[in-house]
Amino acid sequence: MTHKQSYTLGELAELLDAKLVGDGRCRIDGLGTLSGAGPGQLSFLSNPSYINQLATSKASAVLIEERLSKDFSGNKLITPDPYVCFAHATGLFNNSPKAAPGIHPTATIDSSATIGEAVTVGANVVIDANASVGNGSFIGAGSYIGESASLGAGCHLYSGVTLYHRVSLGVNVIIHSGSIIGADGFGFAFDGEKSVKIHQLGSVVIGDDVEIGAGTTIDRGAIEDTIIEQGVKIDNQVQIAHNCRVGAHTIICGCAAIAGSVNIGKYCIMGGGSGAVGHITIVDKVQVSAMSLVSKSISEPGMYSSGTLHMKTSLWKRNIVRFQQLDSIAKRLKELELSTDKT
Amino acid sequence: MTHKQSYTLGELAELLDAKLVGDGRCRIDGLGTLSGAGPGQLSFLSNPSYINQLATSKASAVLIEERLSKDFSGNKLITPDPYVCFAHATGLFNNSPKAAPGIHPTATIDSSATIGEAVTVGANVVIDANASVGNGSFIGAGSYIGESASLGAGCHLYSGVTLYHRVSLGVNVIIHSGSIIGADGFGFAFDGEKSVKIHQLGSVVIGDDVEIGAGTTIDRGAIEDTIIEQGVKIDNQVQIAHNCRVGAHTIICGCAAIAGSVNIGKYCIMGGGSGAVGHITIVDKVQVSAMSLVSKSISEPGMYSSGTLHMKTSLWKRNIVRFQQLDSIAKRLKELELSTDKT
Amino acid sequence: MTHKQSYTLGELAELLDAKLVGDGRCRIDGLGTLSGAGPGQLSFLSNPSYINQLATSKASAVLIEERLSKDFSGNKLITPDPYVCFAHATGLFNNSPKAAPGIHPTATIDSSATIGEAVTVGANVVIDANASVGNGSFIGAGSYIGESASLGAGCHLYSGVTLYHRVSLGVNVIIHSGSIIGADGFGFAFDGEKSVKIHQLGSVVIGDDVEIGAGTTIDRGAIEDTIIEQGVKIDNQVQIAHNCRVGAHTIICGCAAIAGSVNIGKYCIMGGGSGAVGHITIVDKVQVSAMSLVSKSISEPGMYSSGTLHMKTSLWKRNIVRFQQLDSIAKRLKELELSTDKT
Repeated sequence: MTHKQSYTLGELAELLDAKLVGDGRCRIDGLGTLSGAGPGQLSFLSNPSYINQLATSKASAVLIEERLSKDFSGNKLITPDPYVCFAHATGLFNNSPKAAPGIHPTATIDSSATIGEAVTVGANVVIDANASVGNGSFIGAGSYIGESASLGAGCHLYSGVTLYHRVSLGVNVIIHSGSIIGADGFGFAFDGEKSVKIHQLGSVVIGDDVEIGAGTTIDRGAIEDTIIEQGVKIDNQVQIAHNCRVGAHTIICGCAAIAGSVNIGKYCIMGGGSGAVGHITIVDKVQVSAMSLVSKSISEPGMYSSGTLHMKTSLWKRNIVRFQQLDSIAKRLKELELSTDKT
Repeated sequence: MTHKQSYTLGELAELLDAKLVGDGRCRIDGLGTLSGAGPGQLSFLSNPSYINQLATSKASAVLIEERLSKDFSGNKLITPDPYVCFAHATGLFNNSPKAAPGIHPTATIDSSATIGEAVTVGANVVIDANASVGNGSFIGAGSYIGESASLGAGCHLYSGVTLYHRVSLGVNVIIHSGSIIGADGFGFAFDGEKSVKIHQLGSVVIGDDVEIGAGTTIDRGAIEDTIIEQGVKIDNQVQIAHNCRVGAHTIICGCAAIAGSVNIGKYCIMGGGSGAVGHITIVDKVQVSAMSLVSKSISEPGMYSSGTLHMKTSLWKRNIVRFQQLDSIAKRLKELELSTDKT
Repeated sequence: MTHKQSYTLGELAELLDAKLVGDGRCRIDGLGTLSGAGPGQLSFLSNPSYINQLATSKASAVLIEERLSKDFSGNKLITPDPYVCFAHATGLFNNSPKAAPGIHPTATIDSSATIGEAVTVGANVVIDANASVGNGSFIGAGSYIGESASLGAGCHLYSGVTLYHRVSLGVNVIIHSGSIIGADGFGFAFDGEKSVKIHQLGSVVIGDDVEIGAGTTIDRGAIEDTIIEQGVKIDNQVQIAHNCRVGAHTIICGCAAIAGSVNIGKYCIMGGGSGAVGHITIVDKVQVSAMSLVSKSISEPGMYSSGTLHMKTSLWKRNIVRFQQLDSIAKRLKELELSTDKT
């Protein structure tokens, strides 16, 4: 892995707004964990339980809190939150390709579409009628922008992203490959014999600074719109059904599945593979652990879980049989307590 | 959200085969829920528990059953099943773009393929040798139709759909973006050292009036075909493995995962995120709840579930430890019952 | 279903390195299960529990172990492992389309990319700067190969595969449609108000002979690379997060979700819909059953499970309520045991 950028530690201190202690001319050309970093790399101490790795780290400098900084004798950049500072540093060393703005000759853009300034449109992109793309946005190869869809300024769609008609993105939205925004919500009315399609007349509105991973699907609303508020971060292969609202700055981890008309608050975390049944409300600042199912509304912030721990299958097989008898076990215990009391 | 269509209530009564009570000249230009609808919108009462919303609804007219209609003083369309009638109404107000038939100049169509009349082939579509596309079908931008695949009349493939070689679709099949029909089933024979691929020689056959959501995968059979019968509705990110058969009019919700050689009956509902292990049979009219795993065959219609409810993680952590002791708890209880009996 | 190939049983004996017993001139033009095969088809007996199907099978010949071969009076091919031999036979009867090498005129290939000999590049493929494609590789229609990505010899990418920049594939790697390798890992640092992106500077390295199903996502590492070792087989819609390492010859079934920095050993099997929380290690030869969550490291080979069996929802509802009381039930039982002891 070759990083394209190289900085002196002094430059980094300035760029990252950190206090330099040590050799400002020290050359930094990459980042690493405390245990993995080598010479020329900048590392960070965020979790105090790794403090003993400071002594043996080969990193040329470390991002560290003031209060812990005496434990490291090498070059350091003092900052109140080393992990956030490290996140900013990854931006400085970002090695992903930068395309020059321009429209690839193989792109198919309807004449009624509005394309802003300094926009990059990749090979084989298709942009339908009345769509609009904000200034500085990037649309990767093979992406599809449906009729009247709109992208704010500074959006980045990787290759193979699909926006259905009328989907709206705010500014600085990132969407990774294979994600599909605005497909029909899953709505049918059963007429006694077959399922009658409920055409999905709403759309999807995505706020500013939202990031969406690869292979995620967010369906358009049945009548009103599905809403993803600003700053929400969504991982890969997440499914968000029609009419959901996801509150600002909520995080949804990989493979989570949110059923229709779920209202999730702000600053929540839905764990990997977690789920929520339809038509419920989850308040702000709720954390749901991995592969847990939220089966009714949650009205109090905090951490919630469902499921069981893994165990040896041989033990598990005995326990799951007992789980099927659990109500009867509880009743028998109650009976025994009563009879023993009587005794 | 702007709807393109506008009707008088009298026209709607006729189009929806409903009985008009009220002002037939009332203009309706959209749909809404009882609580969300505004003037000019048609709403519906399907679930009697919403009956108290009738009084305050701002809808200009309501689809309602005869027996409940006295509770609403405004304009109404009387119909035996307001929800089904509402579904038909969404078709009248369907505001998704309509493309004029025609082959986009950037499409790559093998000369041996057969394209019916009034077919729309979008930009960058690829249609391989001997494939056939029925009359009136729509193939969205960037879709790929493999060798000898066939689509019946009136199919609608959104952009970026993939049909592998020899996959067969009936008439009026809808497939949303990113779905992949006919990839290899996951079959390997372990030779003691490595996995030897079992080439998948079957295909996938999809019946009439099937709808498939976005990002769903249905694998081709190992020897025989994977079969999806008529009227089945499949949501987003569903995985159906090789050699499955899904019976007519069954509904499979988002993120469900069906392992290989599962035989699902007719009129079943597989809940969101549910699963089924391989080589089992599920009879007609079974409903499996969200994130439940069907771990052996089900021979009786009805509702089935697995898993646990969500709870505060602090309580959950205590309970899951006990779950690991459940067999022992049950045995100790039995022992205590015996010893107490003896007493 | 028509197979393109036809062999005499004598030819097959030689090609499959099996011992012929019976009529070597017998014509075989397809494969089938014991119960499904008809005349002209070759079947196999691998699981002895199917031995009673031998008598009624209409197969023209059967792959069978020496020790069981006396139970079948028809033509047979004797082999030590009939299932592995059957897998090889599927290769002989493989009926998927073969494309002639060549670059489709609609492909967009950067002039700095290196394309090997006898490579097939399908319609609308995009290959970015400095990418390289090994000899004999196949790149299906609409696939995207990012900057500096590399494919070894003999790779097969079906249509619509996405490789991000710098992703590296070994030789003979198969990737099905819609899979996305190298999207950003899901990493953010929370600054008290919003999530700050941690740019993902690593990549993904995939070993030789790996097969990846449809709609699977494997994320690039944060600093170091995500690694999939040789011979790993991954099914559809699997999610592998950043910084994971999957050991050689491990099998990951459909819809499994592996969180970040998980280290999975060699020869493991992750069941369908299973999951693993982040930052854990799973040793070699661990099998995790369907929809089970691995919630901490596993240091001993063997089979592991979590979750509960499905049951009638009416029974389940009573049991899950008791599950929420399980810790209390266990404590009450303990108390009762103590009090009864005292008695």
